Amino acid sequence: MPVRVGILGATGAVGQRFIQLLDDHPTFELAAVTASESSAGKTYRDAAKWRVNTPIPDDVASMTVVETDPSSIPDDVDLLFSSLPSGVAAEVEPAFLEAGYVVSSNSSNDRMADDVPLTIPEINPGHLDLIEVQRDARGWDGALVKNPNCSTITMVPTLAALDQFGLESVRVSTLQAVSGAGYSGVTSMEIIDNAIPHIGGEEAKMETESRKLLGTFDGTEVDLHGMEVAASCNRIPTLDGHLENVFAETAADVSPEEAAAAMREYPGVDLPSSPDQLIHVFEAFGRPQPRMDRGRGDGMQISAGGLQATDAGLKYNCLAHNTIRGAAGASLLNGELLVEEGWV
Amino acid sequence: MPVRVGILGATGAVGQRFIQLLDDHPTFELAAVTASESSAGKTYRDAAKWRVNTPIPDDVASMTVVETDPSSIPDDVDLLFSSLPSGVAAEVEPAFLEAGYVVSSNSSNDRMADDVPLTIPEINPGHLDLIEVQRDARGWDGALVKNPNCSTITMVPTLAALDQFGLESVRVSTLQAVSGAGYSGVTSMEIIDNAIPHIGGEEAKMETESRKLLGTFDGTEVDLHGMEVAASCNRIPTLDGHLENVFAETAADVSPEEAAAAMREYPGVDLPSSPDQLIHVFEAFGRPQPRMDRGRGDGMQISAGGLQATDAGLKYNCLAHNTIRGAAGASLLNGELLVEEGWV
Amino acid sequence: MPVRVGILGATGAVGQRFIQLLDDHPTFELAAVTASESSAGKTYRDAAKWRVNTPIPDDVASMTVVETDPSSIPDDVDLLFSSLPSGVAAEVEPAFLEAGYVVSSNSSNDRMADDVPLTIPEINPGHLDLIEVQRDARGWDGALVKNPNCSTITMVPTLAALDQFGLESVRVSTLQAVSGAGYSGVTSMEIIDNAIPHIGGEEAKMETESRKLLGTFDGTEVDLHGMEVAASCNRIPTLDGHLENVFAETAADVSPEEAAAAMREYPGVDLPSSPDQLIHVFEAFGRPQPRMDRGRGDGMQISAGGLQATDAGLKYNCLAHNTIRGAAGASLLNGELLVEEGWV
Amino acid sequence: MPVRVGILGATGAVGQRFIQLLDDHPTFELAAVTASESSAGKTYRDAAKWRVNTPIPDDVASMTVVETDPSSIPDDVDLLFSSLPSGVAAEVEPAFLEAGYVVSSNSSNDRMADDVPLTIPEINPGHLDLIEVQRDARGWDGALVKNPNCSTITMVPTLAALDQFGLESVRVSTLQAVSGAGYSGVTSMEIIDNAIPHIGGEEAKMETESRKLLGTFDGTEVDLHGMEVAASCNRIPTLDGHLENVFAETAADVSPEEAAAAMREYPGVDLPSSPDQLIHVFEAFGRPQPRMDRGRGDGMQISAGGLQATDAGLKYNCLAHNTIRGAAGASLLNGELLVEEGWV
Repeated sequence: MPVRVGILGATGAVGQRFIQLLDDHPTFELAAVTASESSAGKTYRDAAKWRVNTPIPDDVASMTVVETDPSSIPDDVDLLFSSLPSGVAAEVEPAFLEAGYVVSSNSSNDRMADDVPLTIPEINPGHLDLIEVQRDARGWDGALVKNPNCSTITMVPTLAALDQFGLESVRVSTLQAVSGAGYSGVTSMEIIDNAIPHIGGEEAKMETESRKLLGTFDGTEVDLHGMEVAASCNRIPTLDGHLENVFAETAADVSPEEAAAAMREYPGVDLPSSPDQLIHVFEAFGRPQPRMDRGRGDGMQISAGGLQATDAGLKYNCLAHNTIRGAAGASLLNGELLVEEGWV
Repeated sequence: MPVRVGILGATGAVGQRFIQLLDDHPTFELAAVTASESSAGKTYRDAAKWRVNTPIPDDVASMTVVETDPSSIPDDVDLLFSSLPSGVAAEVEPAFLEAGYVVSSNSSNDRMADDVPLTIPEINPGHLDLIEVQRDARGWDGALVKNPNCSTITMVPTLAALDQFGLESVRVSTLQAVSGAGYSGVTSMEIIDNAIPHIGGEEAKMETESRKLLGTFDGTEVDLHGMEVAASCNRIPTLDGHLENVFAETAADVSPEEAAAAMREYPGVDLPSSPDQLIHVFEAFGRPQPRMDRGRGDGMQISAGGLQATDAGLKYNCLAHNTIRGAAGASLLNGELLVEEGWV
Repeated sequence: MPVRVGILGATGAVGQRFIQLLDDHPTFELAAVTASESSAGKTYRDAAKWRVNTPIPDDVASMTVVETDPSSIPDDVDLLFSSLPSGVAAEVEPAFLEAGYVVSSNSSNDRMADDVPLTIPEINPGHLDLIEVQRDARGWDGALVKNPNCSTITMVPTLAALDQFGLESVRVSTLQAVSGAGYSGVTSMEIIDNAIPHIGGEEAKMETESRKLLGTFDGTEVDLHGMEVAASCNRIPTLDGHLENVFAETAADVSPEEAAAAMREYPGVDLPSSPDQLIHVFEAFGRPQPRMDRGRGDGMQISAGGLQATDAGLKYNCLAHNTIRGAAGASLLNGELLVEEGWV
Repeated sequence: MPVRVGILGATGAVGQRFIQLLDDHPTFELAAVTASESSAGKTYRDAAKWRVNTPIPDDVASMTVVETDPSSIPDDVDLLFSSLPSGVAAEVEPAFLEAGYVVSSNSSNDRMADDVPLTIPEINPGHLDLIEVQRDARGWDGALVKNPNCSTITMVPTLAALDQFGLESVRVSTLQAVSGAGYSGVTSMEIIDNAIPHIGGEEAKMETESRKLLGTFDGTEVDLHGMEVAASCNRIPTLDGHLENVFAETAADVSPEEAAAAMREYPGVDLPSSPDQLIHVFEAFGRPQPRMDRGRGDGMQISAGGLQATDAGLKYNCLAHNTIRGAAGASLLNGELLVEEGWV
């Protein structure tokens, strides 16, 4: 029996990716699409300026968009995906939790809140149990689960693979695609023949979220991982796919070959949208590249390459599709895990 | 009285920049342009596929291109600028030195040779005295001086400014423009909507040249600076201007404000092509950007910005015009220093 | 004695170009900068998000921005340049005319109005006399003069040169730079690895404005030129410079060589901002190109090339810098003509 | 029973597309891949620098590349696809014909030869009978069939649909993707922030091939269509997908609506690689766009849009994927037609 799901903020760029990824999903059935008041009452086709390069699924095109309010959601919907702007999400997500909904949210608010699980199914599925703490603390029946920022999720699987060697310090520099800023986030005048350093807020997200994801959950709270993380985040003229240069130092010595093996062998999960192998490691230098490799594993696989020893540790590159694995796909996978673990 | 100069490899991309920069130069007068055998005998206009966006100076256009051989150079030429491919340079530069010419070379061969000064006039002018060692060792009257690679020269002035605090470790990630690979070095199919990690050879250059530039010359040899340097070099779809993210650790604590002050106050030199201030430091985050800032100081100024403290040190961004400060302009400035110091 | 001028809408993209072009102008002195109510009272430096790649002139940076209202303009200002959004211009330009100001406007409203001169100084300076008709009709002391749209002005000088052969039909296809849509007009997600046909409103402007510019003024009204014009306008991922493919049919036979000669010999004007030669014609095919040629004549020269005979006439390419010759520079040149002809 | 096929020039850009398109083909089975002497004997994986963004099919990766010579082709291969450079093709294609092979060739040589069918299955399948003339003339058992140039094939289906109204004159301006010049054909320095008019040779191909494709075959020769065609061809910074602006004049009046209907109703063919509908016509202006629409019908559908009346006829835009419908896919479809019609 399919799980009926809804999308909060369904007309935006990430909302459109949700719709694309939910099309022909084996267990989820889309039953509600919400947007702002001005779009409510319109068909989805009329409300959304569709920009994904596959057509709108016919059944979604004719759905009526409803307001982003618990009272607008059909009773048989069990799981909501949220791609609301973080300011809006901070206001309306509590109402959905109070009304008992399980919300898998891509919005950046509350990611570092003590009682909100920030999860990647392959990395820290056990953090989902923080939902118990959350329910106790807030007195609600619903549940709020977050996935990390697109720049964080690109790097963390490779760090998780290396943590067996004792991660002490990470420096990371990102080359991020324009889609990460939303459809209208970066103007063409800003970025053609250019690059923009210091993407606002992005560096702090990478520096904190990564330590929560790799932190230890003792049943009550998540103890942040002790590694030092410093990030520099840059926007470049690329459509999709964040490429990152990582410099990592570990307590134990680790060769590039050992590091590559650890990445390749890092276990995946068995969920409908998870890739067969979590991390693909290129032998050849010069890879991964955004346009060539963002589509691996239908946009859900992490790529790594260029592993080399430095005087103090390792350097390597990693890459993920920022609007699939880094946004809608990340929330979707969390949703699949929530079902698998019986939270929905 | 002007110094008469020549350009070895005058028809290539860097050669064209030399011609542009020498036009109306206050002390240098272009008297010879060399190229490969197939171009010798043609006018420069016919031999060069001119791609710089200012017209060929009329007097240069009508000059006859000669072979890259000491016998082809007029007797009254005192100084040669070299932008030969490094393989060719390795073969022919010795012949020019033996013939007594002073050569300021942008070619990458011999940059790390024990008896070859690798200099940036504002950073290590004293290394020029290595010419004495070179002449003793090789028994030649000429002199060979090198400037560093474009990615190295972008970062080193900022490191020089920080070295008063005791540089211990540097990690740097680059976002490099396509012009750094030469006119045909990067195809459009490779780079549109893409980025390419691990530019061949570039990382090793940054890791070694920077330590020589900041090394100590004791009259006999250059002792490399002891800092650890690890570089990851990426090509992005930008025409000119290398942007770099630096993570630096120093023995002494240094705040972003102190670091910015040290950069701003780092002394320049008084040569015709040097900028008024060596390093411009932006207050606002989000700068420097390649297209906006590569032209500062006629392409000879270094820009920096985004200075922030990390757990272990500092992070910041820097930028330079890779084909001016990073190539032809660097050799030109070395040539001006050679004249100023009496070597020509 | 300098003419004191003001800029209406000085903080936008075209306004910034006006300021850049007026810096060190031989006869104009900038005395007033206006913007919307929210900017009034601020210094220009604080009010404008400066994006031109030369610094804000110091004297302008410290000027106080005033509201776009005649009462805000100092009494000794004689000439105003307008780069207001056309909706705003349609509302406020009449107030300035009524108050007696001469306004040289780049805004698109009223370009085809019967009593408004639409002029390019080199093409139809005589149309300025329509000001008499305008003053009679409207009972005002001021004067409103318009320059054409950037896509129109790129093509019309070449057509003017060919009209001696009797222009009958023109088909033109444009490859337009993103700056033509304003700083935020085209998002990076829309245009990277893409092109957009049918720029809204642009095709109609080219089809009508060109016929007015080449029309005949009999002292009372402008009789539109009888040629048929059909335009297809496309946006491409280029920063500045509109490239256009023209197919022209003339009553008399004309060879590519005769057409090239007619373009080269087309007379210029002697105004401070006009180029030495109005149209530069390339011999070699493959030119003009936007990035290589938009800067010719400080952005005020038209380039043409690729002239060939077709079965029915001629085909060729032309190019102009869309935000200089196609916007701020066009208004500025009209202002210089207004002074020269005694209207200011 | 599958038809066994080979690819001449299998390692190049178009060769790679052939391999991608033949993977899982319902009736063709790849049995031979040829390349230049230096690649012969290697596995395909080692010989080809694979750049398509799907992996090399495993069975092809391990195939041994053979020399481009009839003696290297297994006896049971019946049909060859050629993506050889035209100079090479002109030399070696005759040898394959003499040896009795049927060759469906994308190479540009001989497209306008009197006895060579130039075909698009949906447009002029009857021209295939020119093979009889070819065999008579050359005395060979084989057959050579060509598909048109990528810029031609983008436009011709729309013209075919309009020819019922009596095409008299066509002017067309193209915005062509860089992949049309081959992987290394356009450097990044040439095209970033730029456009290049007058692609060498392309304009003549459009002007002649279109008239042959729409010409009349009387059993002996093809009488070229009488319409006048003038083309201007431009390269823009787009990866794949040629966008074209067409201005067409017809003997009979035709409204945009009638033209759109004629395009939509233009019949397709029933071959494995043909799209369900040959031409998709957009209602909304602003489409088709290369990145959004090149993938329609797996890259085999033609898109059109922006139909409007001009004083003298119609203007509209059309688009096709230049390396699929415009190259490898075009040859493949011709191969499917050759089988269907019994020539193989």
